[in-house]
Amino acid sequence: MTSSVEGLRRLCAELVVVRASGHLGDTEREYPQWELPNTDLQRLLGEGVGGVILLGGRASELRLRIRQLEQWAGQPLLLCADVEEGVGQRFGGASWLVPPLALGRLHQRDPERALELAERYGRCTGREARASGLNWVLGPVCDVNNNPANPVINVRAWSEEPGASGALAAAFIRGLRAEGVLSCAKHFPGHGDTSVDSHLELPLLPHERARLEAVELPPFQAAISAGVSAVMTAHLLLPALDPELPATLSRAVLTGLLRQQLGFDGLIVTDALVMEAISGHHGAGEAAVLAVEAGADLVLMPADAEAAITALMAAVVAGRASREQLEASAQRRRNALAQVREASAEAKPAPTAMASVLEPIEPDPVLARELVAATLIRREPQPRFTASHGINLVRLDDALAAPFLPARSPALQRPEGEGLRSMVIDGRSPSPWSGEAGAPLALERLGEGPVLLQLFVRGNPFRGRAAGREPWAAAVRQLQAAGRLAGLVVYGSPYLWEQLEPLLEPHLPGVYSPGQMPLAQELALAALGLGHTGANGGFTD
Amino acid sequence: MTSSVEGLRRLCAELVVVRASGHLGDTEREYPQWELPNTDLQRLLGEGVGGVILLGGRASELRLRIRQLEQWAGQPLLLCADVEEGVGQRFGGASWLVPPLALGRLHQRDPERALELAERYGRCTGREARASGLNWVLGPVCDVNNNPANPVINVRAWSEEPGASGALAAAFIRGLRAEGVLSCAKHFPGHGDTSVDSHLELPLLPHERARLEAVELPPFQAAISAGVSAVMTAHLLLPALDPELPATLSRAVLTGLLRQQLGFDGLIVTDALVMEAISGHHGAGEAAVLAVEAGADLVLMPADAEAAITALMAAVVAGRASREQLEASAQRRRNALAQVREASAEAKPAPTAMASVLEPIEPDPVLARELVAATLIRREPQPRFTASHGINLVRLDDALAAPFLPARSPALQRPEGEGLRSMVIDGRSPSPWSGEAGAPLALERLGEGPVLLQLFVRGNPFRGRAAGREPWAAAVRQLQAAGRLAGLVVYGSPYLWEQLEPLLEPHLPGVYSPGQMPLAQELALAALGLGHTGANGGFTD
Repeated sequence: MTSSVEGLRRLCAELVVVRASGHLGDTEREYPQWELPNTDLQRLLGEGVGGVILLGGRASELRLRIRQLEQWAGQPLLLCADVEEGVGQRFGGASWLVPPLALGRLHQRDPERALELAERYGRCTGREARASGLNWVLGPVCDVNNNPANPVINVRAWSEEPGASGALAAAFIRGLRAEGVLSCAKHFPGHGDTSVDSHLELPLLPHERARLEAVELPPFQAAISAGVSAVMTAHLLLPALDPELPATLSRAVLTGLLRQQLGFDGLIVTDALVMEAISGHHGAGEAAVLAVEAGADLVLMPADAEAAITALMAAVVAGRASREQLEASAQRRRNALAQVREASAEAKPAPTAMASVLEPIEPDPVLARELVAATLIRREPQPRFTASHGINLVRLDDALAAPFLPARSPALQRPEGEGLRSMVIDGRSPSPWSGEAGAPLALERLGEGPVLLQLFVRGNPFRGRAAGREPWAAAVRQLQAAGRLAGLVVYGSPYLWEQLEPLLEPHLPGVYSPGQMPLAQELALAALGLGHTGANGGFTD
Repeated sequence: MTSSVEGLRRLCAELVVVRASGHLGDTEREYPQWELPNTDLQRLLGEGVGGVILLGGRASELRLRIRQLEQWAGQPLLLCADVEEGVGQRFGGASWLVPPLALGRLHQRDPERALELAERYGRCTGREARASGLNWVLGPVCDVNNNPANPVINVRAWSEEPGASGALAAAFIRGLRAEGVLSCAKHFPGHGDTSVDSHLELPLLPHERARLEAVELPPFQAAISAGVSAVMTAHLLLPALDPELPATLSRAVLTGLLRQQLGFDGLIVTDALVMEAISGHHGAGEAAVLAVEAGADLVLMPADAEAAITALMAAVVAGRASREQLEASAQRRRNALAQVREASAEAKPAPTAMASVLEPIEPDPVLARELVAATLIRREPQPRFTASHGINLVRLDDALAAPFLPARSPALQRPEGEGLRSMVIDGRSPSPWSGEAGAPLALERLGEGPVLLQLFVRGNPFRGRAAGREPWAAAVRQLQAAGRLAGLVVYGSPYLWEQLEPLLEPHLPGVYSPGQMPLAQELALAALGLGHTGANGGFTD
């Protein structure tokens, strides 16, 4: 009996994916309320927990961290991360690529080039994921971003159109497969048309089944055809499919639609169960049981991993879930890991242990630059930037959490090199707004001279801000009326660019860059005529 | 002849200490203009360069980086860093301690406790330095900070008084020695009484010899008596000792005063030769030759390491420097390394290579907390903080380079938990100042309600800002006159606190913390009555 109970416990544990920071030590966790401390991790991995989702740190440290976790586990683990925009999006030192939607826009103009770049995007991400120790990339996003107000998907989607979304997602998956890394299409059955952030509440998708088949489902079908390893569920209500339970917990959606009708036989993984859309309605244990009952193979980030394991055990004992079903899920997990091992066996022989962690994980500057250059949009014709004094007005969400804007960024240094003074505004700075509709900027707070506007805006989970809450259109008109606008750069949101660009007077230069990282700033400002200026700043802090 | 030339080249190379980032890869360098790329490092270390100064990255990554450098060198290296305030000051994940001046202030009230804490400060720093792979801590600062306007020393000094400076520095050195790590007294013969930043220009110290013997020299004598491993030179002019050359290049100062009169027989190392005070006047090669001629054993961060090596060779060939002198310097370097190896042989046996890099370098939370608690100053009696709405006004130098203020800092979260709205002002935010002498704050830009002032101020190299340029005294008076001041916290500069605290009305709470890190914020706000509030914020970006 004991061994049978222990066996059941290990089986249930195997289906749980827990969250860990990418740091070796506990004290560096950026989100200690979500990232388990090492004592808990070591215990849970010892009990057979089957996967870890990682966030935070540098790629070279992540590689060490993963060896540490593997030692604690003593079995092969699924090691995943939300590296949708390259490993460098989450782990310093690796490639940070333009957001996927950039390629959707390019696909409208040059589909072949976009597809080729999407596959290389996948290869680069897969190669660096593997070098860092990860074996599972939680991408591509297969949601069709047909709602510009979407705060949680937005530029993370590959396109606003179902066909292009599917084709680009498939190309990305091919790239990951070529590097022997698992993929994950998300968020099934489609999270693109919501204006609510599921991290904060439960969104509702009121569409009929026919509409879902026309818009939401095709990218997932394309991903499945391309051999995607896993599908991640969405925390949203689709009354047309299930009037009561959100997709993550719905048997109609996971087993009926995904497994049976779409014929997907890979891993079904929930989105993080700790998200408010689920945890606000169900306890940690019950949410895990409902997800598995619905047809999920793996439960990601349950609010309490121990409670989830115990609840799954109890569900089997009570007959709510069958042991056979859990065995089948565990087998899918092992099949996925076997694919990864086969692929890495095909790669070059493993170097000695220490040499393998001393080799730097260098980003791919060629691809990163090519992606930025191919997706940058400039005015045609592009007037030259002429200001040699005035204000470099930079808008971003949060200056205290802006990895794309270190103090020595091109977005600051290049205008400063031309004689402009940088002013950075975010959610915590003294307001630059007057509150007046026609003249919304309080110009007296900015100082004298022409103004270069650089707006870093994208829909961000948890922040609930998409472009458009701030009156930038009115501000552009106001600055132009005062003869003070010198140029415009939008980084991130195509929707803000599309709103502002038509307002620009013909003599004013403007650039849109989907990427926000320093490389994107460099190329965007070069497109404006702001070339390289000598590096400045001290050599220490 | 060839072998003799090669031998001379290796000898000269051995006396050079070059700068590297703490990252494995080139692309992560924060200061690429100062930090050599890996191809150059590998070549220079192969040529016999004898030391590396490291900056940037995390402690766990630094440990890998140092193994990589040692492999390239094939000989024992001096591996140093400016970790004056704990290894965590420069490398994430290790202990970040209060600045040394905090203990100088405590020494006035409780000298025994201050000395005990200074020794533990040294032990903690030494232990974590060794765990990270460093063998040489570039501290203690032995400058007497008797000029509050000093932009470059300030809170880095142990005291404003010669006796306490020397006693605390000696205690710190004992701590490092106990952990088998080399130390470095700096900046000889004393950099405390300057109001000019030597990173930017050459300061002048007009004092007579007698004054130097009374104020500047005693801490260095105490450090030498305590067995300090090295002394670092200052880039400043002391006409009383040498009317022409700055200390770094002065034979009278290095050989006459330090070696002969003070009897120091350890390593003499220059401060970074790339600093403007030297490089603005001498070429990279000539600066190195002048320093060695003056009596330096090691030249730190020459503007061009290859040029420095070649110039040193040429100086020997031309008879400007003797080969015997260089041999003696090289011998001092090897003696220092032998001490380190002896000490580490005494420590516990080395674990296997891979296990040794998987063990997290955890900070010492007990000492860090004890230091903050022992050096915090609160009003006596301390009125309670009562505001439940209004503004949490946070002042810092640069929000884009503020490792002490991540977005989830206590300085933001705790007042926000009480209902205050955070407003962060720095050198790039819209100005909060009105420009009027009596009412300097533009209150209409702050919004309504009581204001909690949190001022993060310390003299910072390169920034040239010490406390006092901004009219905070007038602002405190203005807010009090308007009945809007709710409390005051100063982090860092004791001079700003001493200026503002006497202005506070009796009913207003106030706290001074020498440390600026999150732990210091936590304890300072607790002393104000702002206790722990639930963590908030999302679980990803």
